[in-house]
Amino acid sequence: MEEPAFQDIINSLSGCFGCGRDNEKGLRIRSHWEGDEGVCRWMPEAHHRAGEGFINGGVLATVIDCHMGCTATAAAYKAEGRELGSGPELVYVTASLQVDYLRPTPAGQPVELRASIRQINGRKITVACSLRSGGEETVRGEAVFVRVDS
Amino acid sequence: MEEPAFQDIINSLSGCFGCGRDNEKGLRIRSHWEGDEGVCRWMPEAHHRAGEGFINGGVLATVIDCHMGCTATAAAYKAEGRELGSGPELVYVTASLQVDYLRPTPAGQPVELRASIRQINGRKITVACSLRSGGEETVRGEAVFVRVDS
Repeated sequence: MEEPAFQDIINSLSGCFGCGRDNEKGLRIRSHWEGDEGVCRWMPEAHHRAGEGFINGGVLATVIDCHMGCTATAAAYKAEGRELGSGPELVYVTASLQVDYLRPTPAGQPVELRASIRQINGRKITVACSLRSGGEETVRGEAVFVRVDS
Repeated sequence: MEEPAFQDIINSLSGCFGCGRDNEKGLRIRSHWEGDEGVCRWMPEAHHRAGEGFINGGVLATVIDCHMGCTATAAAYKAEGRELGSGPELVYVTASLQVDYLRPTPAGQPVELRASIRQINGRKITVACSLRSGGEETVRGEAVFVRVDS
């Protein structure tokens, strides 16, 4: 049986365009821990293209943002020694996002994202992410997430 | 008759998820000049949400990126004293993108984006963008685009 993804457990985002398990027109990314890294493997659909043969940069920013956000949320539970999804719910939103496009990312093949927690500072979590296609790094992201539950 | 948008003329991006006029599952943004500003008004669909009631941050990054990219392309033609779309075609891609989320952007109502050219330096163009919802600024973006046609 497949291991549950962060997105199977984080209920506040179940309808999200990027990571919501219930959004049928969304990207439906799935993330999980591999050691200390949040890992996501995602296959683009034909309409996620930019120009001919490449994935749209905004779609890649969406995958990176949502994967890092879910990893940040999972890390926040872990830092408190709690099971992901146990109440009261921790909710994080993106405060800022930086994406560097190193080279075009080919359409029609999967991408792999690896996110690592850089810093947990009060209600802020900083995360970095590398996205690879066919083993080659094509995009790098970094973001700050802020806790908004009361 | 409605004025043609940049996206009606830029053929290399006609299938793009963010700005392609022919991508039926895409965001299909439309941008035009108002003075020196590139302006885009865009209405999200229900599935572009994040949590309940707000637009997904990655979708907003996509709208901002594609609107700034099309504005950069239009500015490059203008800087050469040429009609947008006249041959040979100028093609720009995003090198880096920074997005700051100032506050949540409500779903179910249009957003307005205003982009201005910060610098044209050889094959690089830097653009800044402000996104408003109901008159209030909710997101700011900045990006560097690089010319890739030979």
